[in-house]
Amino acid sequence: MTTPIAQAPTTELAGTMFVGSEPVAGTGPEVRSVDPRTGEDLAPAYHFAAPSDVERACLLAEEAFDAFRSTHPWQRARFLERIAHHLTEAGEALVARAHLETGLPVARLQGEVGRTTGQLRLFAATLCEGSWHGARIDPAQPDRTPQPRADIRRRLVPLGPVAVFGASNFPLAFSVPGGDTASALAAGCPVVVKAHEAHLGTSELAARAILAAASETGMPEGVFSLLVGDGAGTGTQLVGDPRVQAVGFTGSRTAGLALTRAAAERPQPIPVYAEMSSVNPVVLMPGALAGRAERLAGEFVGSLTLGGGQFCTNPGLVIAVEGGDLDVFTTAVAAHVETDGGSTMLTPRIARSYRQEADTVSGRPAVEIIARGAEPATASAGRALFAAVTGDAFRADPEIQREMFGAASVLVRCRDLAEVADVVRSLEGQLTATVHTAESDLGDARALLPLLERRVGRVLFNGWPTGVEVGHAMVHGGPYPATTDARSTSVGSSAVERFLRPVAYQDIPDSLLPQPLQDGNPYGIPRRVDGTLTLG
Amino acid sequence: MTTPIAQAPTTELAGTMFVGSEPVAGTGPEVRSVDPRTGEDLAPAYHFAAPSDVERACLLAEEAFDAFRSTHPWQRARFLERIAHHLTEAGEALVARAHLETGLPVARLQGEVGRTTGQLRLFAATLCEGSWHGARIDPAQPDRTPQPRADIRRRLVPLGPVAVFGASNFPLAFSVPGGDTASALAAGCPVVVKAHEAHLGTSELAARAILAAASETGMPEGVFSLLVGDGAGTGTQLVGDPRVQAVGFTGSRTAGLALTRAAAERPQPIPVYAEMSSVNPVVLMPGALAGRAERLAGEFVGSLTLGGGQFCTNPGLVIAVEGGDLDVFTTAVAAHVETDGGSTMLTPRIARSYRQEADTVSGRPAVEIIARGAEPATASAGRALFAAVTGDAFRADPEIQREMFGAASVLVRCRDLAEVADVVRSLEGQLTATVHTAESDLGDARALLPLLERRVGRVLFNGWPTGVEVGHAMVHGGPYPATTDARSTSVGSSAVERFLRPVAYQDIPDSLLPQPLQDGNPYGIPRRVDGTLTLG
Repeated sequence: MTTPIAQAPTTELAGTMFVGSEPVAGTGPEVRSVDPRTGEDLAPAYHFAAPSDVERACLLAEEAFDAFRSTHPWQRARFLERIAHHLTEAGEALVARAHLETGLPVARLQGEVGRTTGQLRLFAATLCEGSWHGARIDPAQPDRTPQPRADIRRRLVPLGPVAVFGASNFPLAFSVPGGDTASALAAGCPVVVKAHEAHLGTSELAARAILAAASETGMPEGVFSLLVGDGAGTGTQLVGDPRVQAVGFTGSRTAGLALTRAAAERPQPIPVYAEMSSVNPVVLMPGALAGRAERLAGEFVGSLTLGGGQFCTNPGLVIAVEGGDLDVFTTAVAAHVETDGGSTMLTPRIARSYRQEADTVSGRPAVEIIARGAEPATASAGRALFAAVTGDAFRADPEIQREMFGAASVLVRCRDLAEVADVVRSLEGQLTATVHTAESDLGDARALLPLLERRVGRVLFNGWPTGVEVGHAMVHGGPYPATTDARSTSVGSSAVERFLRPVAYQDIPDSLLPQPLQDGNPYGIPRRVDGTLTLG
Repeated sequence: MTTPIAQAPTTELAGTMFVGSEPVAGTGPEVRSVDPRTGEDLAPAYHFAAPSDVERACLLAEEAFDAFRSTHPWQRARFLERIAHHLTEAGEALVARAHLETGLPVARLQGEVGRTTGQLRLFAATLCEGSWHGARIDPAQPDRTPQPRADIRRRLVPLGPVAVFGASNFPLAFSVPGGDTASALAAGCPVVVKAHEAHLGTSELAARAILAAASETGMPEGVFSLLVGDGAGTGTQLVGDPRVQAVGFTGSRTAGLALTRAAAERPQPIPVYAEMSSVNPVVLMPGALAGRAERLAGEFVGSLTLGGGQFCTNPGLVIAVEGGDLDVFTTAVAAHVETDGGSTMLTPRIARSYRQEADTVSGRPAVEIIARGAEPATASAGRALFAAVTGDAFRADPEIQREMFGAASVLVRCRDLAEVADVVRSLEGQLTATVHTAESDLGDARALLPLLERRVGRVLFNGWPTGVEVGHAMVHGGPYPATTDARSTSVGSSAVERFLRPVAYQDIPDSLLPQPLQDGNPYGIPRRVDGTLTLG
């Protein structure tokens, strides 16, 4: 498929947000993204949305909702595929701008374009497959005694307009065109994104790609808006708007909980899917340490320092039994960390926060600093940290398990495997837990698995938590405070379920039934008929 | 299958709660159920749980959790089936006691035993079918470029111990052995029920049936507890207990919102599934009124006064276009209502509340009383009410759409179908909406359907909302304030999903994987493999 050149979105930055498809300059305070490597402000200037802009974006989203949710799922699939197309076309400009705004390496950002477009295509495929409708049919039983049974059918419908708050650390895959937007659009929910102020230009380019695709595929005006503003003002107004029916968020615990409170205090409370913080414990089992301590050390530091440690799934906690093998691991980690030159962090503010958090944890009485990275060349670079603490001390001081957003990790040295289990029991909810095993560890790992499973969204063996595969089986979520809703994932095809709710239809004439439930199964989708799954 | 007589639970009442399987007398204030027909206290006396009883019930539930969730789903299915068996065996005693405590007719309560046991058996069948596991497998792709794909598998796991608060109006089907308990146990969650003080004896008998089944089928101690107490004390402590991971509730909006607040203010917030209030709008389309106004009137009053109007799905609102056909309907309804002798309400307090609510709505300036039932013989009986208001007045006064829990309904007289649509747009979230149509109404009904769909959990045509079928396709839920979580249903087999969350397993050796995800598919369940549904 080719796009007429006339429809290709421009890659010039105009410094605007978009209220529906209309570029709007904003009348609030000026804001600019910053080159984190130099601390310099970047052109163009953007301006915060006026309250009337937020209001109008929500109104347009509400007005678009009925038409959008009534589109054939294949039409929405094509919309998503065309977004992916335009992002690919704009790839070079997107990567260049995102590199300028985030300091993330070009190769990493090129990979992120692929991840983002792959994600959009996954949701397109999910829409066509059709299980997401949750279609169920319990046919009438007119002769049942003592009472006849009505014909009852059920499907899932979209919640309504969704507000999305993107993350700083993935300026595409978890931002404007990221998983929250893609899954909400797939569900049939119009989306209003509040752009992250750290990558406003990248956000504008991504919005242009989405709007071009919306226009090409005949989606209703208002199906997507991009707002510029701050969390306290624009963000709170957006979450409080009565037309918004759900919120997707990836970011800090403080911001996530503020949005959750705002959503709960509405006259009509709405669900908030906030993915907030996680230290992603890694358990090194004795057999694994005995067999490959040095290799594990190298891999661990690679995962720890990847992207400046600015991953939600960064391995911020290592748990192992003390002894000679752990000493080998620790010494090797120290050597790697000490030669790490640090990375420019996403924003000067994140760099400052990271220094504070690392200082706070390092300064706890029981914490021993094992190694620090080299003093970085610039103020906005993060310095890696590897510290250690005993199991007893870790369990006695909840501050030590707080996330440090950056390349910092704490080793918990345990007396024995029983204490490893106790440390695991003391953990808050997490996105991931990792276990490194040798064959000889499998019995003990089996006992550990149920403990980990209760506290996390994903358990992995003999790998590293950074790198979240976008597929059907992925869970990027987990018990509080990793997220505000452990029943959901923000990555993978089942992320679409966050924005749906069931409706039952009783004795509705076939011609009036939604297509997924009509007798002829015009969408050809899997359905559960009288409890039995049929493939459609 | 027969039960040894020795194991059959006694139907004598001891006046105890159960902390795990242990009968506990309670040391708090005395409480007794009341015969609502006479206002007399009933024997035996019960006592509120001490805080230590609540604590211990939660501790036992937590201790039971890992063993319980590890049971084969077929074992849990057998547990549920044995509960159904014991309820059936105890049916006569249950019905007699429930009749004494609630004033509900014996035939209705006999039907409720059947509904409750049918519901337990539905969840047993659901457990065996296996789709509830949500099993997904994305096999490894070791040769994928640029990076190999790990083996990732996902299933749903139970949340943990669940607190259940039963309703007064269904002393079995929405109480101790009701849908919340059955679906939580099916999910693998231990359950702690706070008994409704209006039917303590019925609760004790039902708890005995559950505990007998637990013992017979080898379920762990603590899988079920029954507590006696009040909402403010025992209930709040239960919801605040750190081991409780979800709450099921059916009852008033005030109580539901109080529990929701308590759950949100925990250090670790938890989901609350509260089914609270609904006026269940019924739209009478012009063709339907023209053809069968009198028949509709009779059926409507039957649904309105069923069980003293004490149904969550009671038709508390009728919407229609004014004119001669509506006058025929109104006159016929008035005749039926005026000869209605009223029913004893569930509790003296509910009768008082109902009188107040009916007086409040009747007293609103724009509300015209069309008919009242006969002055009832006793103070605890409810007097039916049928009132009317114009569409304009209805939309101007939100108080008029508040639930009156009893046989009261308000007719909204609209100028035309456009105003019917406006009235529908002004409605809060509801459990149900009903449309009565003739063939000539189908075009207009089609336009109304999306408006109704957005506001309700179930839309039905040409029937009455009372009577909630327990099946696979049922949705008994709806947007706030009908419930606190529009994404869920409290009736039907998908109610089990409320108590589950997804976990992904990455590169875990087959022998350590949970059975639903092992290569050999030992449970023989439907699974999604690389996105494609397989029937197992």
